[in-house]
Amino acid sequence: MIYLDNAATTQMKQEVLDEMMPYFREYYGNASAVYELGNKSKYAIDVARDRAAALLHTKAERIFFTSGGSESDNWAIIKTAQMLKGKGHHLITTAIEHPAVINTMKALEDEGFEVTFLPVDEKGFVTPEQVEEAIRDDTILISVMFANNEIGTIEPIEEIGCIAHEHGILFHTDAVQAFGQLPIDPDQMNIDLLSASAHKIYGPKGVGLLYLSPKASRIRSLIHGGGQERNKRAGTENVPGIVGFGKACELAASTINERMQQESSLRDYFIKKVLDEIPFTYVNGASGDDRLPGNANIGFKFVEAESELIMLDQKGIAASSGSACTAGSIDPSHVLLAIGRDETEARESLRFTLSDATTKEELDKTVDVLKETVEMLRSTNLFYQDYLEKNG
Amino acid sequence: MIYLDNAATTQMKQEVLDEMMPYFREYYGNASAVYELGNKSKYAIDVARDRAAALLHTKAERIFFTSGGSESDNWAIIKTAQMLKGKGHHLITTAIEHPAVINTMKALEDEGFEVTFLPVDEKGFVTPEQVEEAIRDDTILISVMFANNEIGTIEPIEEIGCIAHEHGILFHTDAVQAFGQLPIDPDQMNIDLLSASAHKIYGPKGVGLLYLSPKASRIRSLIHGGGQERNKRAGTENVPGIVGFGKACELAASTINERMQQESSLRDYFIKKVLDEIPFTYVNGASGDDRLPGNANIGFKFVEAESELIMLDQKGIAASSGSACTAGSIDPSHVLLAIGRDETEARESLRFTLSDATTKEELDKTVDVLKETVEMLRSTNLFYQDYLEKNG
Repeated sequence: MIYLDNAATTQMKQEVLDEMMPYFREYYGNASAVYELGNKSKYAIDVARDRAAALLHTKAERIFFTSGGSESDNWAIIKTAQMLKGKGHHLITTAIEHPAVINTMKALEDEGFEVTFLPVDEKGFVTPEQVEEAIRDDTILISVMFANNEIGTIEPIEEIGCIAHEHGILFHTDAVQAFGQLPIDPDQMNIDLLSASAHKIYGPKGVGLLYLSPKASRIRSLIHGGGQERNKRAGTENVPGIVGFGKACELAASTINERMQQESSLRDYFIKKVLDEIPFTYVNGASGDDRLPGNANIGFKFVEAESELIMLDQKGIAASSGSACTAGSIDPSHVLLAIGRDETEARESLRFTLSDATTKEELDKTVDVLKETVEMLRSTNLFYQDYLEKNG
Repeated sequence: MIYLDNAATTQMKQEVLDEMMPYFREYYGNASAVYELGNKSKYAIDVARDRAAALLHTKAERIFFTSGGSESDNWAIIKTAQMLKGKGHHLITTAIEHPAVINTMKALEDEGFEVTFLPVDEKGFVTPEQVEEAIRDDTILISVMFANNEIGTIEPIEEIGCIAHEHGILFHTDAVQAFGQLPIDPDQMNIDLLSASAHKIYGPKGVGLLYLSPKASRIRSLIHGGGQERNKRAGTENVPGIVGFGKACELAASTINERMQQESSLRDYFIKKVLDEIPFTYVNGASGDDRLPGNANIGFKFVEAESELIMLDQKGIAASSGSACTAGSIDPSHVLLAIGRDETEARESLRFTLSDATTKEELDKTVDVLKETVEMLRSTNLFYQDYLEKNG
């Protein structure tokens, strides 16, 4: 099987699992306990926090472990809004955020907050100027994703953060797709709150983090209870999960440059080959350094993406349509609609995710299978026949 | 090492880990994806949900997986309050709840809700009559823990649930300590919302569940985002964790009766032996069938519990003081204060947790070590010397 689906980067590394193993049954102490076994867990969490902090070029004290990216997004947005509701009720975000941001913003709207969902251009960019124009006296938070999960477009985060700070507004970024895949320095990039997830960097599912700058560190807990995570996130620590996340961060930090180079080069090779060899295809999203190294999103005219996915699966290739969280839903991708695709185009686009293990041979094979299966699906498509008759 | 600390029941079973292993690196698909690998994850989660439901004698559709007991408590309480705030602003709970309930209630107080914290008697019981008297026209939720984590007292849940329902009020129980240790049937016991955690029944850390009755199933998500858990709990599913939780539920269901009998018998043996053989000792909490089978909480007059814990640790015995989440904190246990112990007494009490692996030999050894170390600590205690002089 060739894995180019959005779980491609979620297969845990053996080194990550190896590091986690002793914490399942050997060192299973509660990290908040005072005795020897508890100390082992506590120390292991400290090491993991240091490793996560190192990947963000920041201090360990700014890292708070959560159950994943969605919890981090909810925490960052809801609790910033609640903390600052005395100052204002307006939040700014984009139309192409992950559902964990969009639906959290919508939940805040139900509570009386106002949210501006900024449109993006045809490549998926929001501009710093757009953000600045949307700022009002009562704006309390700007949340813009670091890189889009579906089309790979990398937003001008540092510039947007700069504008947020010029206006004294806190800046959150959902960096779930970018964390460990692109260099991120929250301090230099003017980021106050940053969400990340372990399972996108070959770490375990069910673990994430929220980075909080000193200015943002006053937000209250989303999950109240015991004093874990320095009174910020209650609940018995998922020690093996956190240990695995730490190891994944360490591995990511040591390989980030070569992975970026290798994956972006393979990505460009793959995109060019598909566009060259399969007619009626187009790319969704930005190109070059403005695109996540491992992301390709390609539209195949006259092809129903869900059918193509099944055919690929049968031929041993896993790819995705839309986002993981909305796959199987009948709604077309909100991201593709936001960059100006119509519903038909949104339904004919496939997402390919390259991992550090993806090879040129796998991509060549994928192009071959795509050629064959796309042609097969098109041959039964009446619109395609009609088009050929009129244009051929 | 003899483990009688509150992590005693948290050492994952080998069978649980074995069941989880394939889902770390082999079947790592996103459970919400449409392809083959995703289906494996989806099916595994279905099996786990069936197993958790079976332990509660309920339907799978009423089980929602979370990141743990604290998240479940927060979700149940906060979102019920928000759903029903049009009806009223009053909630009822007890003074001896876990911090995940107490601190969530306090957070609601900050938002304008009123909370009645019912006192308990000297054994730790709250009575159905007390609950009924506290009910007001604007009461929207009653939350009473199934069994106390520190002193083991089992509350009259079925009767309290009955009263809640007679008054048309939703009833939540934090069953983290009781789940899998005592028979629970939410339907028969009039429970609308129930929180549980995997790591208290030899399952993995970082996984829990919230049971929602049909009446309670309208509450909104605590964590917004993708459509996971039937649109109730967003976030990529922690597949290995959920699989492990399911296996732990299955094991718990098949052994619950023998564990209850074995642990309560050993517990009573241990408590009696300590009281018989070590002077100036007393039990905190209820006895017999009103106490969690695996819980013993004993006060040692003229002994500083934290010092005793360290001495026990050095002699190869792990025990606890207070709750896991407040261990290390300098505040005396709120539970012990609530049952009428003074601060000195609260600081001289130790908690012993028996697991299904605890043996009579281990308990005999523990009593021997307790005798020796308690005597040693008392010998340096001026109050003890003073007492002996005056009374001996």
